[in-house]
Amino acid sequence: MSLPKIETCFSPSMLHLYDLRDSIVVIIDVFRATSTIAAALHQGAKEIIPVAQVDECIRLGSSIPNAITAGERDGKVAPGLQHGNSPLEYPREFVSGKTLVLTTTNGTRLLHMCGDAGEIITGSFLNLGAVCEYLSSQGRNVLLACASWKDRFNLEDSLFAGAVYECIGSQFEMNCDSTRAAVALYRQAKGQLYNYIQDSAHFIRLSKFNLQYDMEYCCKIDHHNVLVKYMDGKLIGSS
Amino acid sequence: MSLPKIETCFSPSMLHLYDLRDSIVVIIDVFRATSTIAAALHQGAKEIIPVAQVDECIRLGSSIPNAITAGERDGKVAPGLQHGNSPLEYPREFVSGKTLVLTTTNGTRLLHMCGDAGEIITGSFLNLGAVCEYLSSQGRNVLLACASWKDRFNLEDSLFAGAVYECIGSQFEMNCDSTRAAVALYRQAKGQLYNYIQDSAHFIRLSKFNLQYDMEYCCKIDHHNVLVKYMDGKLIGSS
Repeated sequence: MSLPKIETCFSPSMLHLYDLRDSIVVIIDVFRATSTIAAALHQGAKEIIPVAQVDECIRLGSSIPNAITAGERDGKVAPGLQHGNSPLEYPREFVSGKTLVLTTTNGTRLLHMCGDAGEIITGSFLNLGAVCEYLSSQGRNVLLACASWKDRFNLEDSLFAGAVYECIGSQFEMNCDSTRAAVALYRQAKGQLYNYIQDSAHFIRLSKFNLQYDMEYCCKIDHHNVLVKYMDGKLIGSS
Repeated sequence: MSLPKIETCFSPSMLHLYDLRDSIVVIIDVFRATSTIAAALHQGAKEIIPVAQVDECIRLGSSIPNAITAGERDGKVAPGLQHGNSPLEYPREFVSGKTLVLTTTNGTRLLHMCGDAGEIITGSFLNLGAVCEYLSSQGRNVLLACASWKDRFNLEDSLFAGAVYECIGSQFEMNCDSTRAAVALYRQAKGQLYNYIQDSAHFIRLSKFNLQYDMEYCCKIDHHNVLVKYMDGKLIGSS
């Protein structure tokens, strides 16, 4: 019996090269959308609705009971929204049972580009284990899709793709140089992820907003180990 | 005084993210277009005219005195052409003084996509030293542009980008995760490039056409150390 295939897409601008229809697509936006999503759902949020624009976020937030609007632009809570895009902002006592309407740029855009996917889940180091366990159990083709930064290759998303391959790669057929590069980089970074990532464009950018602790938190493997599925426009947690 | 900038573009599908106009763009197609180009020019070819299509290659070849038509499709000399796309096919006694009309897929396409570039040169391990020396002397921004394989990230072109940065990176300002990844990979591969590249999609593909020796040859650093400039539709060697 042939193994399912695993591939890595480094940028949304390369997404057209891959067949999404027969695949589980893992959306990866480590700094910080998919980390925040894992944290909020693990802490008991009912669901997360990802939207592209701030005005849509405000509109939806006011029409849904018990909703929180959240999102940042340039490292600050966007005007008109209530909360930011930090995994640390959503402790259980605050977020439990609520709907989070979240606007992010890169992660949400990629999510919406993957409408053809057989299935969509989201991944971050915070829920690496849950992602791997699920992919491993399904026996389907996998595309590890990096949200990147404005379509540019980024290190942290690629490292996460490498981490997934490091964990479960032997269960897949792989002939994809992106995956090879990702796992080679991850093997360098393993065990010192936060140190490694400090020499990256995103770290340098977010550090200007004093978000170092956020990024350190995003490097904690399995700290919010929930499986996140995207269905009918909503992200739902399941354990 | 601020340093010029160096960046790496992993795929032609990301080329729109970079400003080519003020940069020297280095076209990289290690297996095998830019390796063959370096070899033929180093062995005394007068010039190389890169074209996209086989029929254009035939037409140009018959209209230029002392021309050789060359190009492969699926690892074999394309029907109607005289020679292949191997750096080994162009010894001095054969190619000296001649015009090579060469059709390749990925490399030529990228070359034609870079019409806006301030300046275009081509790079391969065979002429790494000449590329580095030139970039180093110009003090201009640099874009290391990987031809890749059908727009997909590939290891060998990325490793060459990493090699350039390893040699002359300190003379540039760099805040580009692609370059960081490329140099991290190159440091793993350094000194054992041919071994390292054997676990790559392109190696696997070209091995089916028994082109291992070609690829080993393409890994020989500075073996055809000529600077290759692209001007007025032609590639010209200068030492």
